[in-house]
Amino acid sequence: MKKDNNKVNAAIIIIGNEILSGRTQDVNVVAISEWLNELGIKLNEVRIIPDVQKKIIKTIKEIRRQHKYVFTTGGIGPTHDDITARSVAKAFNLTYGYHKQAYALLEKYYGKDAFNLGRKKMAKMPTKAKLILNPTSGAPGFNIYNIFCLPGVPSILKSMLGGLKNEIVGGKKVLNKTITLKTVESEIARPLEKVQNNYKKVEIGSYPFFKKGRLGVSIVLRSTEKKQIDLSYKQIVNFIKKKKIEIVG
Amino acid sequence: MKKDNNKVNAAIIIIGNEILSGRTQDVNVVAISEWLNELGIKLNEVRIIPDVQKKIIKTIKEIRRQHKYVFTTGGIGPTHDDITARSVAKAFNLTYGYHKQAYALLEKYYGKDAFNLGRKKMAKMPTKAKLILNPTSGAPGFNIYNIFCLPGVPSILKSMLGGLKNEIVGGKKVLNKTITLKTVESEIARPLEKVQNNYKKVEIGSYPFFKKGRLGVSIVLRSTEKKQIDLSYKQIVNFIKKKKIEIVG
Repeated sequence: MKKDNNKVNAAIIIIGNEILSGRTQDVNVVAISEWLNELGIKLNEVRIIPDVQKKIIKTIKEIRRQHKYVFTTGGIGPTHDDITARSVAKAFNLTYGYHKQAYALLEKYYGKDAFNLGRKKMAKMPTKAKLILNPTSGAPGFNIYNIFCLPGVPSILKSMLGGLKNEIVGGKKVLNKTITLKTVESEIARPLEKVQNNYKKVEIGSYPFFKKGRLGVSIVLRSTEKKQIDLSYKQIVNFIKKKKIEIVG
Repeated sequence: MKKDNNKVNAAIIIIGNEILSGRTQDVNVVAISEWLNELGIKLNEVRIIPDVQKKIIKTIKEIRRQHKYVFTTGGIGPTHDDITARSVAKAFNLTYGYHKQAYALLEKYYGKDAFNLGRKKMAKMPTKAKLILNPTSGAPGFNIYNIFCLPGVPSILKSMLGGLKNEIVGGKKVLNKTITLKTVESEIARPLEKVQNNYKKVEIGSYPFFKKGRLGVSIVLRSTEKKQIDLSYKQIVNFIKKKKIEIVG
């Protein structure tokens, strides 16, 4: 529960009516979060908002002050509902127009004849933004201030995270350890709370599950400090053994 | 893109470190969103926040003013990291303690001898809250003001939505129609924008996909007015045919 590592933190803004309407299952939060874990950056908040310019502007302005890094997903394609780039420009009174490098890159990618207006729109963004290259499908994302704008299509987004690594300064990596038990949460709640109170630098989570007719609890220990994880793990195993609870993973 | 139906709106607050850490893929947004669609309620925003009391309080207070209904998921179990009920009570200076009806219900569910402290914790909430019954696993959620607190385990959450229906006053149902094309977005961006401008009461979304080696675009029309959907659909089919684009679904 402690606020370890909170200085190097991040937020994600998912921009897209299709997520809010339930049509599309978001999978980008998990992808970005796992990538941030590797870099030692803690994801502190996610917001899912509609394709509405006013809302995008308000959210970005608010969120970017509270976090070191902000990632947006969605809304940078060629159609009328792709309004992320224009909204970001408007939020900070930046010139919105053809980004020279993006234009050249896309013209080369599609070939001069096939570079139609729809495709050209994908070169429009805050003109002084830094591009985030797209190895999968040409159209780049962009970075301005502490905001990194990525596409919504999961496979393309993932392919772009690799190249972003060098732009991001991470923190201490968050380590984790899981112990899975054949029990119910109420059986372990009190001793687990004691361990949490003993090891405040470890974030101890308890997650019940019911799958394939099996019932159990996963306890997850997360911390930047390996020793703290090991010590708290030991205390948990001790009380588990005393209670004769079966460890299943 | 128009703000139809926005008066009967809702927000979801997902409370859980396990979602932010990428350990757990959220599926509750889609479940609640689909359920809200049936009731004619528009999901306007989702926030995913950590198990941190201050953050929970701040988010709930802010969000509940902006939406007719607010649903929270997670943090109502028996362990130390389950702090939703206490946080909600604190947010509104409500008495937090054993809820009579919840206590009686859980005592009956578990039996007097097995009703240990961990289980008793699940009867703690704002004492004047209204219970949301749980047909799957006993422990109830609760409703106070326009806030509905539900568990994080998807199967349990889903089982509780049915009983909630009577507490919620919906709006006009949002209808939708999808047309799937073998094309790329840039080919249809301009005519599609024209249709959007002609039918402002229809929210037209364009979603590219790449799956199983197939490349395409789904156009989704959403509106409370069937006639508007039908008319805009016709205009889209017209330009699709002129452009000799294949309709695949």
